[in-house]
This record gives sequence, C-alpha cells and structure tokens, in this order.
Amino acid sequence: MAFIPYDSPSTRRRIRAVLFDTFGTVVDWRTGVAREVAAFARAQGLNFDAEQFADEWRGLYQPALQTVRSGARPFLSLDDLHYENLCRVLNNHGVAPASLGTKVVEELNRSWHRLPAWPDSVSGLTALRSRYIIGPLSNGNTSLLLNMAKSTGLPWDIILGSDITRAYKPAPESYQRTAALLGMDPGEVMLAAAHNEDLEAAQQSGLATAFITRSDEHGPNQTSDRIPTGAWDITSRSIIDLAEQLGAEMH
Amino acid sequence: MAFIPYDSPSTRRRIRAVLFDTFGTVVDWRTGVAREVAAFARAQGLNFDAEQFADEWRGLYQPALQTVRSGARPFLSLDDLHYENLCRVLNNHGVAPASLGTKVVEELNRSWHRLPAWPDSVSGLTALRSRYIIGPLSNGNTSLLLNMAKSTGLPWDIILGSDITRAYKPAPESYQRTAALLGMDPGEVMLAAAHNEDLEAAQQSGLATAFITRSDEHGPNQTSDRIPTGAWDITSRSIIDLAEQLGAEMH
Repeated sequence: MAFIPYDSPSTRRRIRAVLFDTFGTVVDWRTGVAREVAAFARAQGLNFDAEQFADEWRGLYQPALQTVRSGARPFLSLDDLHYENLCRVLNNHGVAPASLGTKVVEELNRSWHRLPAWPDSVSGLTALRSRYIIGPLSNGNTSLLLNMAKSTGLPWDIILGSDITRAYKPAPESYQRTAALLGMDPGEVMLAAAHNEDLEAAQQSGLATAFITRSDEHGPNQTSDRIPTGAWDITSRSIIDLAEQLGAEMH
Repeated sequence: MAFIPYDSPSTRRRIRAVLFDTFGTVVDWRTGVAREVAAFARAQGLNFDAEQFADEWRGLYQPALQTVRSGARPFLSLDDLHYENLCRVLNNHGVAPASLGTKVVEELNRSWHRLPAWPDSVSGLTALRSRYIIGPLSNGNTSLLLNMAKSTGLPWDIILGSDITRAYKPAPESYQRTAALLGMDPGEVMLAAAHNEDLEAAQQSGLATAFITRSDEHGPNQTSDRIPTGAWDITSRSIIDLAEQLGAEMH
C-alpha cells in the first residue's frame, strides 16, 4: 500500500490517515433530520416546522455533550443524549413522548443513523481511500456511524466512535486516543472538518488540519464557520477538492 | 440498505453482521510470517527454517494470551505480545534481539500486519458486504487489523480490535462487547471461524456460528480443526461458499 508523501506544513510529518468530522462535514444532518421529522409529524397528525424542529434538537447537542465533558455526568452515548434531547423538544412542542411510545421515539431518534451525505462526500472519500486510511472522527457512537456508512455508502476503512474513546470533541482525548488506536503519532493524522473549533482542538493535539467550507450546514442563513479562521494546513471547498489537494486521483 | 433475512436456526434471529476470526480463517499467517522470516534471515545471514520459526512463534501465542485472560498480567496488545514472543524465539535460536536492534525486530514483528489473504477471502467478503455488515472479530489489535486490511484489500465495514474490547477470545467479553458496540443483540451477529473452540465460545455468548474449513492453516500435516465438531449454523469450504450459503451474490 503506497501512502502519498503529503508533508503537512504544520507538522512536517507524512499524513497516513485522514479522519473526518461527520455531522455537517460529511453528512447533511439538517436536511436528513428535517425530512424524518416531517414524515413523523404527518404520521402522527402533528403540525411541526420540521427544519425548526431539527434546529432545536441540534441546539441541545453541545449543552448535552458539555455535561459529559465537564464530568457532571458519566459517559453516555450520543444515541442516549439524542434520545433525551428529542424528548425535551417533543415536550416543548406539547407532545408527551410517553404518549407516542418508546418505539416511535426510538425510530425518530435513529434518523441520525440515516443522514444523507453531501453530494461530493462519497466520491471524494473513495478517491482519498486509495491513498490514505480514512475514517470518521466524530462525536457519534460506533453503531450510529456504522449504520450511517452502510445506508449512505461512506467507504470508511475504520470506524472508531466516541463510545470507544469515551470522550467528546473538542476534548483532547478524543483526538489522541483515536490516533493511538490507529498506531500513529498525532502528526500522521489529519482532521478534516467544517468547524474551526474542532480543527483548533485537533491542532493543539498535534494533528494536521483541513477546513472544508459547508456554508449550508445550518440552512440559508448560516453565520458560523463560513470561512477558515485558523492556520489550517489545507482549506477546501468540498471533499473532492480536499482529495485533489492531497494528491488522490478522482475517477 | 436491505439486509437479507437469514434466520439462524440456533437463534431464530436475523443475522445483520458477519464477523470473522482472521488469523487462519481470513489470512494465511504461516505462509506470510515464514516469507518474512526467510527474508529477514537472508538479510541477517542467519540459517533458519522459516516455517518452523513461524510455527514456534505462533506456538507461543495462546500461552501469552492466557497470561492476560487469567488476569496474571494486565491487558497488553497483541503487537506487544508478538514482540515478546519473537524475542523469545530469536533467543532460542541463539540470536540476541538486542544485537539486531529494536527497529529490525519491530519490522519483523510487523509481518503480522501484512499477512496475505486466502485466495477466496477478498471476493467472498466483497459479496457478503453487499448484504451484511462485515468485520474482523480477532485477537489482533486495531492497528494490526487495519494495516492488514489496507495491505491485503479486505473490505471490512468496521474494525474493532482486541485493544478496544480489551479481551482475548475465547473470553465471553470479546464477543459480547463487540456485539454491544455494533448496537446489536448477540443473536444478530454471526462469527465465522476455522476454529471449533472459537465458535463454541461464540455460541455460548449467543452468537450464530459458521465453520470454514482451512485444512492448510498449519501446513500439510495439520491435525486440528479439519472438520466441524459442533452444531454450527453453517459449515463451509471457503468464504465464497459461506457468502453463497448466506444468499450474497457473487460477481
């Protein structure tokens, strides 16, 4: 297996693995969740703004992770945190989760396992895979990332979820334990992400960094992460663009 | 993603994942290690019987795992145990590892990362992958299994090494923790292996089982595991045969 000798300017180490933030970077969580919320609402005879519901659900994501990162709560999987947050959003909309039944709520919660990829993701990753080890470096749990890969066709070499590292980004352990499991020094690993904060933490742990612009992640009025704000090794417009900059051949 | 409704007779659960023992079942460790030992011996001007050396090295495998399984030692990765065992075999042949240097010994130790697949493995796994989640369930550590997959072209969906479950087969935790990380009940997971003892332990943990005959694993005079000795759900002659029995289409 020939690895391309990409020398990261920040680390002067050859990159052997390119790992990806997933929610927002590889998959379009807002469209995917809103679509399933709309179908759920129709089936239940509820009148929801599906995109607003998706935004509210996602809005509880970082606060929930923070309760684990701070040590206030023991480690809980992202599936479990998503479930709690979904129950809160349903309650906020006047719908008691218990009235729907566990199976219905669980099924909606699994919409995160079935998110659609951005149009460039599968072809860009497929190109990268011929030169690098590729995988997610996500706050998703392993089964979520695995089911997403199978349903969306993401050609990961390896999937190490947050329930394996037992750490949520941007905690340093999430980057460092992942590199250790790959048998690599942090400088041999590149994180690609649409979020500057994630790249900042990865860089502090010694990883190489690639910014991917995803100006539609939060819909048409997105204000955050529209431009790179750090000294990243690469800035790119898509995963295809990233693959080309890393010397992988497109087919 | 359509999963084929294979109903395991022993579990009456639909199989969603087919996981594989690797050393001996998917890859030919004896040929691969002997080849690298022969090259190493030539380079060092040593006169080794490379296949005997490989057998001696492998012969220390189960005793080393047993020191961890018994609790006599804390968990050590298979790379670390292989390294210790290699040093012992070298010493037994009158070669002091220190005289070779760490880099040379480490390079030979990594022959386990580069083992060749049996001729049917890649095509059989590729067929299975269209219908099932596939991965190793091996005593190898994650980086070993990942490097093996990249060098040999094994198309795993997911790689969860023994350094993730922190248990060595046939300890029940190795099967149970793997199923839990997949988000599956044990009965939704099938273990495919060329070793009856491995299948026995998997069955006791509730997994479905498939025997694959590998009569050449230990060379021409192999006496063990030439036939299935338990009530396995499937017995097969190769991974291609297994894929066909599980309804996966060959291309």
